[in-house]
Order: sequence, then C-alpha cells, then structure tokens
Amino acid sequence: MRIVVLAGGIGGARFLRGLKSAAPDADITVIGNTGDDIHLFGLKVCPDLDTVMYTLGGGVHEEQGWGRAEETFAVKEELTAYGVGPEWFSLGDRDFATHIIRTQMIAAGYPLSAITEALCARWQPGVRLIPMTDDRVETHVVISASDSGSAAGPDDRGRKAVHLQEYWVRLHASVPAHAVLPVGAEQSKPAPGVLEAIAKADVILFPPSNPVVSVGTILAVPGIREAITAAGVPVIGLSPIVGNAPVRGMADKMLTAVGVEATAAAVAAHYSSALLDGWLVDTVDAAAVGKVEEAGIGCRAVPLMMTDVEAAAQMAREALAFASEVRA
Amino acid sequence: MRIVVLAGGIGGARFLRGLKSAAPDADITVIGNTGDDIHLFGLKVCPDLDTVMYTLGGGVHEEQGWGRAEETFAVKEELTAYGVGPEWFSLGDRDFATHIIRTQMIAAGYPLSAITEALCARWQPGVRLIPMTDDRVETHVVISASDSGSAAGPDDRGRKAVHLQEYWVRLHASVPAHAVLPVGAEQSKPAPGVLEAIAKADVILFPPSNPVVSVGTILAVPGIREAITAAGVPVIGLSPIVGNAPVRGMADKMLTAVGVEATAAAVAAHYSSALLDGWLVDTVDAAAVGKVEEAGIGCRAVPLMMTDVEAAAQMAREALAFASEVRA
Repeated sequence: MRIVVLAGGIGGARFLRGLKSAAPDADITVIGNTGDDIHLFGLKVCPDLDTVMYTLGGGVHEEQGWGRAEETFAVKEELTAYGVGPEWFSLGDRDFATHIIRTQMIAAGYPLSAITEALCARWQPGVRLIPMTDDRVETHVVISASDSGSAAGPDDRGRKAVHLQEYWVRLHASVPAHAVLPVGAEQSKPAPGVLEAIAKADVILFPPSNPVVSVGTILAVPGIREAITAAGVPVIGLSPIVGNAPVRGMADKMLTAVGVEATAAAVAAHYSSALLDGWLVDTVDAAAVGKVEEAGIGCRAVPLMMTDVEAAAQMAREALAFASEVRA
Repeated sequence: MRIVVLAGGIGGARFLRGLKSAAPDADITVIGNTGDDIHLFGLKVCPDLDTVMYTLGGGVHEEQGWGRAEETFAVKEELTAYGVGPEWFSLGDRDFATHIIRTQMIAAGYPLSAITEALCARWQPGVRLIPMTDDRVETHVVISASDSGSAAGPDDRGRKAVHLQEYWVRLHASVPAHAVLPVGAEQSKPAPGVLEAIAKADVILFPPSNPVVSVGTILAVPGIREAITAAGVPVIGLSPIVGNAPVRGMADKMLTAVGVEATAAAVAAHYSSALLDGWLVDTVDAAAVGKVEEAGIGCRAVPLMMTDVEAAAQMAREALAFASEVRA
C-alpha cells in the first residue's frame, strides 16, 4: 500500500510514528511543510522536516516533541555572549550540526530535496521524506505593529508581518493574527517526486497538523492540490481541533486569521469536500459528525489524542479503515 | 608608544600577552596572519586571528594554546555521525559560534577586518587586531603525493598541494614539504589600517612565530614589507628556533621547504638586514650572535622560552630595550 502524508511538525511526526507502527509494510511518502523554514545565524533551519526526521529516526527530544534528545546549548550561549540574536529561538548543539550541513550543501548547489535525502540517510526514518518544494517559501503572519514589541516597520494601517517562527516562538501566538502569508508559495514548484508520489498513492492522509500553516501551506504550492484531487484515491484527514481547541500549537489563532472557526467541523469545511473524502473528529466532537457529513465529507468520531505511539497507531488504523470504506 | 606586531598563532599570541604586561600603556596593533584560514563545513575559520583574540581576551584553552577553554564537542560529533568530515580538524562548540558569526557576516558583505573588529568587541583583547588582508589567501604546502595518504591529484612530478592545515593537523608535518605556496597573496591588498599602523609605529616586532607560514605570509602581502622598511623605525625579531629546533610548531619543516636552515642565525638572514634591525636569539644560541651581526643585523642572546606570562613579558622588555638601543 502506498500512502502519502502531508505533514507539519510535531503532530505530523507523532502521527507518522503511529502510522508506521499500524502499517509496517506500507510505502510511506511524507510531503513536508517548509513554510516555517527560517534563516538563523546564516544557517537554513527546517523545523518541520527535522521534527519528522528526528522523531521517526529516534533522535527527537521526546517530551518537547522537537529538537534533539540529550541536547546541549554551548553554541547558542556563545552567540548570545557575542550579542548575536535572535535570543528567542532555541537551537541546540546537535541540531546546529544538521543546519550546518544543510547550509553547506545549499551553498554547494544541492536542492533541499536532495539535502533532506542525504540527512535521512543517517536517520533512516522509514519513510520517504520530501520537502513540499525546493523553492524558498516563508510563512509570515500579519499582526498589529503595536503588538509586535518592536516599533519597526508598520504599514499605514499600523500592521506588520513577522515570520511564523517569530509569531509562535517569540510572541507565543499571544496576539491576534490578521492574515497569514505563505510568501513565495505562488511562485514555487513541487519538489521532485511530490506529484509522482501523489499520483501513485493508494491513500492520502492529512495528519492532525495545523490546517493553515502546515497542511495549508503545502496545499498552497501550485499543483499539489490539483494532483490530490486528480489522484482519485481516498483522502482522509484527522482533526487537529478537539473540543474547539487545538490539541497543541496555534491552529486556533491561524484559523481565526483566515476567517475559519476553530472547530473540527469548520476545519473539514475549510479543506472542503473537493479535497476530503473522510474526516476523523475526536469522540468529544461526535456531535459534529452530522455537520461534516452535510458538507459532503464522510465523518467518524474516534479518539484523537496521541498520548503515546499506540494511540497514534490506533488513529492511523482508523484513518486507513475509513479510507477502505470510502473506496468501497 | 605605538607598537606593531606581525603575529601568527600560539607563539604570537603568547608573546603579545607578555608584551601587554610589559608595556601596559602602549598602543599595540597586531597584524594577524590569515594564510592558515580554512573553509570547513561551509564556515570560515581563521585559526591565527582567533588564537590571538581568545588568548588576549582570556578565553583560550591554556594548555592547548588554541581553541576555547571549557570546550565541548557536540556539533563535531554530530557532523561525524552524519559522515561529514574532515574528521582530522577539531572544532569545539564554543569555537563554532565564532565561525558561524564570521560566516554570516561575510555573507552579509562585511570584510574580514570589520568582522574581526566586531568579534573583538566581545573579547576586548587590549590590542587592535587587524587581519593582514581582507582578501582570500590560503597557504598550501607541496608534498609528494605518495606521502599524502590519498591517491588523488598528483601532478606529473608526483607532487600535490595540501592546505597548510591539512599538512599540520592531518599529516602532523611528518612528511617533507617541497614548497610553500601562499595562494592568493600576490593579488591581495593589505586590510584597511595595516599600512597606516605600520607608518605610525614607533617600533615593529616579529614575535617568535613561524617565519615562513606566519610572518612570511604577512610579508607576502604586497605593500607590507615595503611599508615596514619605509617606516624607518626599529624592527626587532625574536627567534622561533631555539637550539636548532622550533620551540613549537613546524618552523623547521617550513624553513627546509624554502631552503633555509633551521637555525636562529639562518632565520635572521632569511628575514635579512633590509628588514631587521635587531634579532633576539635564545641564550643556548649565544654562539650565533656573531654570525647574525656579520649579516648586518644587531643581535643579543636572552632567554626565549615563554614558560609563562612573565617569561614572555621579559622577552618583550628585551625586545623593546633592544629597539631603544637600535634607535639611539
């Protein structure tokens, strides 16, 4: 069975670990979000790709969900001692090595997809991990300049755009987001292998990743959405919203920014029946099933809290079973 | 008193620490060798500049003489785990931060001299440290290909050039050097401030650094040698060779490569009376004093082992006293 998964960071990575456990013989291709990539200290950092790679490769900091296990912070301490920031972005020494190699390979002319493959040669994630695009896409969030903690750069409506990482890590998503801009997405092309994997897929899954800045950004790369609908195979999503709140992260803030209610049903409608065949909501949102079905999307309520690998595996089994049903 | 010092790495840095102690009120400009700079992991590494900066700034690994005190090696271990080399070059986590900042600033368009000044703003070395040039100069050593431990790249005489760092760190200077090539030196220009500092100097010192690949490389930057002779002030050197062997490093190997005997007297003659007014040899080489004087260079035998800061300070005092005498 060939499975394609559109993944963001922690939620996507944990779901994928469950999927591998639920379908050990499946051929899994992960199309990774790169909209949260950021250049820090002259280095190219790909948080979502690395979270997937480290999680599936056994190197992730388990409790934190991102970054490396047994991490140290000597480089970052030194950068701070030199007065070189940003201070708000934590990078560990082991993690730095990944970014140093990636940056060196970019300078040598390799595309991000080839670099990701080279890094995965060490981690052996057990999936094929492909960035959504080799082109530079950077998601920015429009906020009120007065909320930014910095006087610089407001437009004439008093708004300014900050990098998604700055919104999330420095501002803790604590101020209203007025818009989400996947800068560069319109001009980007899917990375080699992305459209081919979608065309050959038996099932396509949207894990409980952020529907706006993770899965939504992947879908903003021209050609990917079209390839998914053209594939003619079941597309099953899992709600990242449980009981009207995101399981983790800032999906609620991002949904509000794009005018979508932070409910499991509204997220399904946002993806739309043109894209989704089935939608899994948590059992606490069982009342939403009828509403999702009214929107023309199959729906089922199952437990969606990834408390451990087995819980994630059970979610993956439910998604695959739902796909079989949809297909039948 | 304005003192200009042409410095390599460890020997230069330790002498400078002594000089600062001996002449705390002096205005000291250090012209640093950059011929041993190397690009590693996509980062610009300047070993000699950093050794001076860390030593005078109190951050050096004392016993080792280079690199940072209380250093850790997580980044390097990770790079090795990824299979990314070279393995033979040790870089600590704290040291990596310096190279990351330098590389980021180079990418942003800053010249090495401005970057060095920015890094020194943290270290406060108590001297003005200027790289000999902002241009890229890389010293290569010509060896027999059969000695290189690698089949790649011999010319039709069976020789190949390796980076100075590779010769020293990987090959431990254990194979014959046939020639020393300061690649790029001929096309380089002195960094801003270098010629001005020399022109304003009251005394110019050559510390016991490697006369070929440290001081010699600095002198290979067009304009520097001429500025020194034009300055018309005492130029005093300290022999890095004591008892026919280098105090440390590979001065003997490099001298042989350029056809100069590894003796205190031969090094003085190599610099020549056109450049040097005075030459300090170690007391064990007292017999060489006459020979140096015959070459038209003033000479005196004093202890030249930098066993501690006070010993280095005493050497600096001898050099400054000798300069006063020469001037008189």
